[in-house]
This record gives sequence, structure tokens and C-alpha cells, in this order.
Amino acid sequence: MARYDFASDNTAPAAPEALQAIIEANHGFASGYGSDHISAKAADAVRALLDADAEVRFVASGTAANAISLAALCHPFEAVVAHEHAHICTDETGAPGFFGHGVGLIPLDGASGRIELPALKEALAAPDQSHRQSPAALSLTNATEYGTVYDRDDLVELISAAKAKGLGVHLDGARLANAAAAGFDLKSIARLGVDILVVGGTKAGMTPTEAVVIFDRKLAHRFDARLKQAGQLPSKGRFYAAPFIGMLESGAFVERAAHANEMALRLSALSPFPLRHKVQANAVFVEMDEPTLARLHAAGWFVYRFLDGSVRFMCSWATTPESVDELGAVLQSVA
Amino acid sequence: MARYDFASDNTAPAAPEALQAIIEANHGFASGYGSDHISAKAADAVRALLDADAEVRFVASGTAANAISLAALCHPFEAVVAHEHAHICTDETGAPGFFGHGVGLIPLDGASGRIELPALKEALAAPDQSHRQSPAALSLTNATEYGTVYDRDDLVELISAAKAKGLGVHLDGARLANAAAAGFDLKSIARLGVDILVVGGTKAGMTPTEAVVIFDRKLAHRFDARLKQAGQLPSKGRFYAAPFIGMLESGAFVERAAHANEMALRLSALSPFPLRHKVQANAVFVEMDEPTLARLHAAGWFVYRFLDGSVRFMCSWATTPESVDELGAVLQSVA
Amino acid sequence: MARYDFASDNTAPAAPEALQAIIEANHGFASGYGSDHISAKAADAVRALLDADAEVRFVASGTAANAISLAALCHPFEAVVAHEHAHICTDETGAPGFFGHGVGLIPLDGASGRIELPALKEALAAPDQSHRQSPAALSLTNATEYGTVYDRDDLVELISAAKAKGLGVHLDGARLANAAAAGFDLKSIARLGVDILVVGGTKAGMTPTEAVVIFDRKLAHRFDARLKQAGQLPSKGRFYAAPFIGMLESGAFVERAAHANEMALRLSALSPFPLRHKVQANAVFVEMDEPTLARLHAAGWFVYRFLDGSVRFMCSWATTPESVDELGAVLQSVA
Amino acid sequence: MARYDFASDNTAPAAPEALQAIIEANHGFASGYGSDHISAKAADAVRALLDADAEVRFVASGTAANAISLAALCHPFEAVVAHEHAHICTDETGAPGFFGHGVGLIPLDGASGRIELPALKEALAAPDQSHRQSPAALSLTNATEYGTVYDRDDLVELISAAKAKGLGVHLDGARLANAAAAGFDLKSIARLGVDILVVGGTKAGMTPTEAVVIFDRKLAHRFDARLKQAGQLPSKGRFYAAPFIGMLESGAFVERAAHANEMALRLSALSPFPLRHKVQANAVFVEMDEPTLARLHAAGWFVYRFLDGSVRFMCSWATTPESVDELGAVLQSVA
Repeated sequence: MARYDFASDNTAPAAPEALQAIIEANHGFASGYGSDHISAKAADAVRALLDADAEVRFVASGTAANAISLAALCHPFEAVVAHEHAHICTDETGAPGFFGHGVGLIPLDGASGRIELPALKEALAAPDQSHRQSPAALSLTNATEYGTVYDRDDLVELISAAKAKGLGVHLDGARLANAAAAGFDLKSIARLGVDILVVGGTKAGMTPTEAVVIFDRKLAHRFDARLKQAGQLPSKGRFYAAPFIGMLESGAFVERAAHANEMALRLSALSPFPLRHKVQANAVFVEMDEPTLARLHAAGWFVYRFLDGSVRFMCSWATTPESVDELGAVLQSVA
Repeated sequence: MARYDFASDNTAPAAPEALQAIIEANHGFASGYGSDHISAKAADAVRALLDADAEVRFVASGTAANAISLAALCHPFEAVVAHEHAHICTDETGAPGFFGHGVGLIPLDGASGRIELPALKEALAAPDQSHRQSPAALSLTNATEYGTVYDRDDLVELISAAKAKGLGVHLDGARLANAAAAGFDLKSIARLGVDILVVGGTKAGMTPTEAVVIFDRKLAHRFDARLKQAGQLPSKGRFYAAPFIGMLESGAFVERAAHANEMALRLSALSPFPLRHKVQANAVFVEMDEPTLARLHAAGWFVYRFLDGSVRFMCSWATTPESVDELGAVLQSVA
Repeated sequence: MARYDFASDNTAPAAPEALQAIIEANHGFASGYGSDHISAKAADAVRALLDADAEVRFVASGTAANAISLAALCHPFEAVVAHEHAHICTDETGAPGFFGHGVGLIPLDGASGRIELPALKEALAAPDQSHRQSPAALSLTNATEYGTVYDRDDLVELISAAKAKGLGVHLDGARLANAAAAGFDLKSIARLGVDILVVGGTKAGMTPTEAVVIFDRKLAHRFDARLKQAGQLPSKGRFYAAPFIGMLESGAFVERAAHANEMALRLSALSPFPLRHKVQANAVFVEMDEPTLARLHAAGWFVYRFLDGSVRFMCSWATTPESVDELGAVLQSVA
Repeated sequence: MARYDFASDNTAPAAPEALQAIIEANHGFASGYGSDHISAKAADAVRALLDADAEVRFVASGTAANAISLAALCHPFEAVVAHEHAHICTDETGAPGFFGHGVGLIPLDGASGRIELPALKEALAAPDQSHRQSPAALSLTNATEYGTVYDRDDLVELISAAKAKGLGVHLDGARLANAAAAGFDLKSIARLGVDILVVGGTKAGMTPTEAVVIFDRKLAHRFDARLKQAGQLPSKGRFYAAPFIGMLESGAFVERAAHANEMALRLSALSPFPLRHKVQANAVFVEMDEPTLARLHAAGWFVYRFLDGSVRFMCSWATTPESVDELGAVLQSVA
């Protein structure tokens, strides 16, 4: 049996708080399509988490949540500026173009998954030309694909530059809980000028669910119709909302992410391989040659080589210290 | 508190068999994106239900499942022939056009939600012309939107006519369980020539999940990429698969639909209003004027007036005889 | 040899004024993509025709011009209200859905191709619901598909009703010249609240070219990029602009349409068949049974049976009185 | 007055043979939408040029022709492999994604605009994965964006590699005439396995028109409907077809391209700047620093700096030896 413990943070089951909330929500009849009282309560919990008055919707898929958000910010003849290794650029099978009817991507490089201000400014300085898709949105990811975390000052600079050029701002928060556990202030998001945010539930330890948070109310016009057409307005909305209630009201959302982050640190301490990126959230990226990776796979541990050439180990709420130690020993043995 | 018991079959919670299967699946780590052992087991269960060797995928949304299936059968410059009151025509916010990049709909009338052979033949006889979208697929729904059921002979005729013109065939089985409980032989679907089927889990009493069954293997090429781009390849696939295991292996899928159908019959016997359509599945449609409906709403019971002007009462696995009798008494009182 | 004289107004060649303007424009080098001096001069001519300060672009296709305009007014999850027999509904192979990524159509009936106020008001009164595409634009056609003409008061009422609900307004002017020749005041269009207008060049006697006129400047943002992505920003823009110069500066645009209208009247006087619609522009629609139409086809004259069951005869700038008389005699003989 | 002579090959007027053919076609009535006798004759001329039995359509736009062709070869969840500086990648505002509903691009580098076999093989060797768009088509351009020409052996290797993996092959022939004049055998295209070809008319000296040539007849199913929906089925088809008759029957298509190529060679001999790419067709790319380019612009000559950092000078059928010499002198003066 292959071990998928560290392959991704979505190989984990749902945390007890999430599942228990579903069990508790599974009583009686409820109105459909997100109009139920459980969805309303969960939206309140998300607003409280963010300390913001915003529209909140719960959807099934992070890929769809991101792509729908970007479609709300861009016309098809416009583009999204994003890190070249952002999930929307590399792992969503072109979903932004599918949901956005050809919306383009302008990939920026930048160390450890973080967009850097000079690169952003250069992209924004390019004159509008009719033969190419000019930027209409900036997409940020926090924590990043490489397990690093933007701090508030980084984001202020990037978002200010984007706003100065009239761009909308999307924040992919698939691992927002891990960023929060690493010190990122969730209550700052609304003040920073983010227009639309996806709060990841799935990777945070819930059953599949993501919250779309619309800070710019103009974008919210007919948003339920937008979601319905895109197959993301769930008829039984309670099952997407309840896990957020369970995880947010208990504090488990950030606490369990803190555990995941801690497991990553523990693993990084045990790993004999050079770290490629600073460990700030729940990922450990190491330099490992191909024969070594093959030995690791042969030992039954499944992990991915990433676009930057390093090998990724993800921790989640369900990662145990014992499994980290077990993997650490295996890493020593294959090194 | 408004009563939503009869507003739809998706106002119900999940049945115990579905939820228990999720709880049981919620252990250990599993590989992602539908490659896990639970998804494999659930696919086997669906194949056994249908007695067919087919590709099976589990997705979050019936709207998306239908629209993605139709996009697999049609080019954007082609059209789907469907009943004018089919869910894809009236209740999905144009999702077939969104997922299908402008795919058209050719609506046919027909009593009680059923397409009739002469209307289909007339639509198919129209010559191909470049200035309109010619049919490339036939979409059928069983049980229909009006709670009626096609029998096997009806379907043989309709599908044969479509196949003779080279069309693909999609079956929307949002209420396939109810059709099965009404006598429709699920093992006939593969033999009938259906190319792609959506087996409804949500309305059958599961948490949100639908099975896409691809009988025509040519359509399955890169289907996971198709789903991923469309936001319907769930990373934690087990949560969409497990409810099917719970409901199919126990027989609850059809048994609980039989209960829903029985509740509809019970309600129809109590209703003082003329029935608009024959009660064959889990819906009761009655003729009711607007003041009467207003009195019913005022009494706290929420139901919808439908496109044919009648008022719909839906029963589900969770409908109790007591609530039917309670509603029956209210109907008597407002009549 | 079949006679196509009356099959459509696009079976005619280009009028001398249009072709001569192309010949005159065919000298020297010019900057590309509509930035040339000929395009600028033609845009001035269109603005003068309409007495309006608006953005003007020249494109190759009326179908694309309409669909791109509608995409500028609607999101994919919204719909266009139009006459059920409008060209965008019946003759453009679903182009609005293709260019608009699933944009819907809400077809209204109405005598002789004209939308009637009560039908429009009813459509606009429908409450916004997330499961269907709510109206975001009204599309009008003048002259209509049935050769009738809206007068100013009709349009004031329809457009006011649409504007009151926040809709944008598109005017398909494929036969705007014929409407003008029938008395419709082109200078009223800007005052009426039309947001985007397509001025037909092709059917007015030009080589293929249409002018897109954007009255609402907010819609003009990055419009060249919108056109380029949609394959409608011509590199050699002068060839789409020049015919407008030739036809507008000479007055031929309306004069030649007046001739076409006159030919239609002449034909209607000669026809032994009952008229289906009032002849106000360049079309004659008559009631004719199938055997009679077959005899007419056998006599070598190609014309179409239309969606309302009548048979259409179109006149153009190139229609001669002699050909009208010749056809009139044939109609007498087959009657 | 700025000089646009060398800014692009689409700044030129139409060649006499093209315009004369339009004048000659401008008589009498003709059936619509490409069914006319002139379109039929032009299609024959294209087939003769290529020595191939293929479907031929005439459209208004090269951007649309390319994007429609790619949409015929790829699903939205698939991708096109192309040179990173191919027109479809850099100059069409994302049209492949718009017409192809999110179709992706896999850009390859390669010297002087030519795809190299190792890079192609590496792209094709990547395993199919559901989270990214796998290649379904190879797009080649001949002559390339950098004025170089693939020879037959290059193309045999590239196309064979693509076909071995089941890809379709598109050839962007916006400058096919220049490639032919440089020795590329047009009659080889059909044998090479190209599935769909765009023969550029506009840059070859015609009024705006492009021929889409469909070698793989399966792709031709309902192609007119595909074109109509995409706004590229011209009602007055003769105006897109006639220029091809005029240029092909006279031999001007290749002869005038040979002149353009010769002018490029002449210019390259006069230029004091290092050549960036070999001059094989009608383009000269030179290394020029920014102050020098500014002086050239100030001297009234408009040309573009390209993506590879060099400055491009394009010649066309209309470029005169005198203007080349005049520019040569200016280049000497600003050097």
C-alpha cells in the first residue's frame, strides 16, 4: 500500500469538527441553493473570521471558485497577472480560460512562489495594445504554492500597484488557514483592497468546500446566477456550509493549520536534503535527485516532483508526529 | 418557520446510509482526484447497478454533470434536442451554453414532460442549414420533470430515431432512482444506446454527488482533464463516491425512492385538487388557483408553481406519512 | 440559371459608390488595425449620419457585430430580450451564445417582427431568479426581419421600459438604411438611449462591412482588443471603412435604400398573393402555398419560405423595375 | 506624415490583380454564404495551387481563421503546441482561447521562429495529466514570424512526431506566398499530413481574405455552421473569393511574394545593422538600440521592435526598390 500522507494536503480525511458539523446539519428540511439557515450561519462565521461585511458563498471546488472569481474580474480579452507557478497557471487545466471564455494569464517569476514588486510593475507598465490581453486582475496566493507566506507589507505594495492601474485583486486562499497560522492577519484582507477571496476549506481539513468572499459588492450582482450557470450553486447548500461552522466556531480552522505547519517544520528538521524554500506553512520542498526519489517511491512513499525541480512534502491536520518521524527515517535511509 | 418538506426533493437531509458511508470513508489518507480506492469501489457499484462496463466519475453538481455531458456530445455550433421543460432548458441558467460554448437547445413540447416520437422525428427531419444549430444530441430525463416515467418501449423508439440520425444520447437521471422504483429497468439503459448518463445522488438522498456514466468509451478520452477544467474533478474524491457505496450496496437507492414514490401517491389521494399529471414517481402536480396557493403559503407550506401552471409537491426519502397527512389536511382546509 | 435577385438583399453586388471608394482608398501605405486615416474619415461620416459623438469601428460581419455588441452588454449568466424571429435568434447559428459564452435569448412574439410593449413589460417583470438567465439587454431590429419599421414613438416606449429595468439597448441596423428611407430619423438613435448600434453596410449595397457604433463610452474600453480577440479587427481597415465614405458622403446610403423600398412597393402591387406584412421597407412577404412556391422555383426564381410561413421577396439597390415586372408576370403565371 | 511602408506587410494596398478580380466579380446577383460560382471557382484555384482535393472556405480574418481551425482540432481541455513567438501566441489577443473555449497554448522556443524537433519531442513526451492541458494539435507557421522558412524535411520530421502522438496539424500560412517564393513546395503540404491550412490572402497583397483549407474531411462536418456561428461565413462570399482568383490564376500570388522577398534581401544588403535572422522571406530583423530606433522614428519611419528584441522591417508586393534605397540611406544616417 502506497503512503499518500505527504503527497498533498488533500489526501487527508476530514477533521472531526468538520464532519461533526455535517452530522449536526443533517436534520430536517432546508430551503435550497444556499438560502438555508446553515449557509447563513456559516457566512456569518466567515465574515467574523475576516472581520468584514462581505457576500459569502460556498462552493464545491477550489478550481471553479478561482476561475469564477477571475471571470468576475476580467473580460475574455483581458488577462490575470499571477505567479508563473500559481495553481491557476499550472494545475487547473486552463480553468480560468474555460470559465472566463479565453481570459489570459500573464505569468510572473519570483522566488519561492511570491510575486515581486519589480516584476509586477513591469507587467503593469506594458502599454495597452489591442493585439494582446492586457491585465485586468492580479491574482495572489497565500500561503503560496511553495509553502511561503506573504506578509502584510508585501501585499500592501503589490495590491497598491495593481489598484493604481485599475486592476481587481483576487486572493487564492486554498491554504489561507496555513498562512493565518503562520501569522498572516486574516482581518487585514478586507483592508488591503482584495476584491474577491477564496477561503480554502478542503485543504484546511474539511470535506470538499470552499468559501467565495466578495468584498466588492458590485461584483456580487446576480452572483447566484453566475454560480448556478457554472455548476457551483449547490442545491443542498448545508453540506458545503456546515464544515465552515464546525471549523470556524471551534477555532480548529487555524489551530489545525498550525499543527500542519508544525509538522512541516518537524519534517524539515529531520530531512537530510537541502531545503529549496523557507518552511513557513505546511510544505517542505527539498532538493532530491531522480534516483533518490525513485528509492523513496520504492519504499512506498508517494510524493511529487514540482515545477521548480524540487520534491514536495505536504503536511495536513491529519499528519502525525509519528508519521513524520517515520518518513524522516526513510529519508535518511534513501539519502 | 416555513415548511420546505414538499418544496423539492433536495430540501431533505442525507439518508443514513449515505452519511454512514461518508463516516466510514473518513479514515486514513487517500490519493486524490478520483484515483482512490473508495471511488473505484463506488464505480464498481454503479456498474453493477447498471449491469454495464462503463467509465464512471463522481461529481458535485447535476447541472455541471448534465452540461459537461452535453458538451462531450455536441460542438458549439450544434444543438441538443430536449423537452421544453427539461431541467437543462429551464432551470440551469443556460449551463449547457456555458459549458458547451454556445451549444443550442431545441425544445420540444410533449404531454407531462415526455418527448413524443412525432415531435422528435419532425425536429430530426429539419435539413442541416449553416445558419442554425442542427441537432447533435438527444437529452432525455427519467423520471421526468413532471414525475412521469418513460417505459422501455418509449425509450427504444426515441433513441432509435435519434441514433438513426447520428445523434448522441444523454440521459438525465437526477431522479433515476424514482424511475427505477416505478419499474424502469436500470439494466436496460446500456442496451438502449444511451451514450452518457447522469445518475442523481443528491435527490436520491445523498449528500451532494452525481455519477457520470460514460457508456461510449470514445467520449471518455481525457475525461478527467475535461472535468478538472470544468471544476468537477474533486481532489477528495472519496466524499463524492462514498454515498453511492452506502446507498447502492444496501439497496437503499431504490428502496428509499420507492418510499418517496409511495408518499407521492398517498398525497395525491388526499389532495382535493385535480391532478395535472399522472403520479408515477415522487411528484404530485395539481391545479390550484393563485389565491389558494397564497393561502397554502400563508399556512407555512412552501411549494412552487411550475412552468405548466400547476403546483408541484415533491416527496423524498425523508417524507413521512405523518407529514403527508398533515399537508393533506392543510390542502383540504385551503381548498 | 437560377435567379437570386429576390432571394436576399445580400445577393446583390456592391453599389458603384462603394466600389469606387475602395478603388480610391487603394493607394499608398496605411497604418493597420483601424488606425488609418480612411477609417478615421469613415467614422466621422458615420457620426455625421447619426449626429452623435460615438466610438465607431468597422468590421466584416453583421453576425459578429451583433454578437460582440451583445457580449458587451451581457454577462454569460444573463439574457438578451429580442423578437423571436430576430436575426440573432433564428439566423446566426447561436452566435450570441458563442461570442457571449452562453448568453441566453428571451424571445418575444409580436406582429410583423415588432416587439410589443406589453410583451416586453411582462418579460421585464419576471423576478430575478438564479436558476434562469435574467434580461440584461434589449435587442431591437430596424427595419425588422419582416420589412416593417418601428417609428420613433414605438422605440421611445420600448427603450424606456428597458432602461427603467437597467438593461442595455442594442439596435441591429442591418437594414437601417431601409428604415431611414422609410422615414426613421437616424439622428434620433443617440437620443433614444441606444447603447450600441450596428449599421449595416453589406445589405445597404456595400462590399462586406458593418459599422459598430458605441454610444455608451464605458462599453468602448479596450474595444479594439475585444474585436481583435473575436477576429474582427481588420489589419487592412481601409477596405471596411472606404465603402461607408463612398455611400455616406454621396447620400447613396439612403437614396439607394429608398430605391430598394420603392421596388418592394412596386412588387407588392404586382403580386397576386395576399400580403402577410405591411410593406414599409425593402421586403415583400406573401402567403403562398407549397405547390405554388414549387412552380415559382421551377420557373427559376429562388426565394425562401420564412419562419412565419410566408414567402419572402427582398429588393436591393440593384433591383431593377424590369426585373420586378418580370417577376410580377411570373407570379401571375404561377398563382 | 509617417511612413508605414515597412511597418508590416498589411500596410500595403491591394495588388491590381486582386482588385481587378473584385471589380470583375461585381456583376449580377449571386447566391449567398459561399455557395456562389465565384467562391466555387476560387476554391478550385486554391486546390490547383496545392494540388489537393480539399474543402476550401474564404473568410475575412487570419486571426479567426487560425483560431477556428485550432478549435476544430482541440477540445477546450487540450492545448496547441506552437512556437512561443507564433502569431497565435503573441498577437491575437488570446483568440485561440476565445474561439476554442479555453484551449491552451504550449509555447516552444526555437531559433528564428522555427520549432526544433527536440523541443517538440520533449513537449510530446510529457505524460497526459488531468490537471493540465495536454497537446492535441501542432501549429506551424511558414514563413515564420521571423521571416525564415521551414524546408520540407524540417516539416516532415515535426509533423511525423506530432502525428505519432495523435495530434492534428495546423499550418498558419499568413505568409505562405513568401514561403513558396523562397522555394517551399506548396504541393507538398497535403502529402505532409497537414490537417488544416490557412492560406493568407491579406499579407499576400489581397483585400482582406484568407482561405481555410481542410484536408482532413472529417473536420469539414458542418464547417459552414462552425463559420457562421463564429461570424466568418460571409453573405457576399464573392468578395472574399474573387481576389484569390485574380492572384492565383495570374500567378501573381507567388510572383508578387517573390518581389517582396527580393526587396527584403535588397534592404538587408543596405542595412548597417547586424541581422538577427537569416533573410529568407519578406522580413528583415536587425539589432538596433533604443536611441537609434528613436532617431529612425523621428525621421518618420515607423517600424516595430519585436519580442526577440530586434527591429523588424517588412516588405510587401508594394515595396519599391526606390523606397528600399531611401530607407537604406536613412538607416545609414541614423546608425
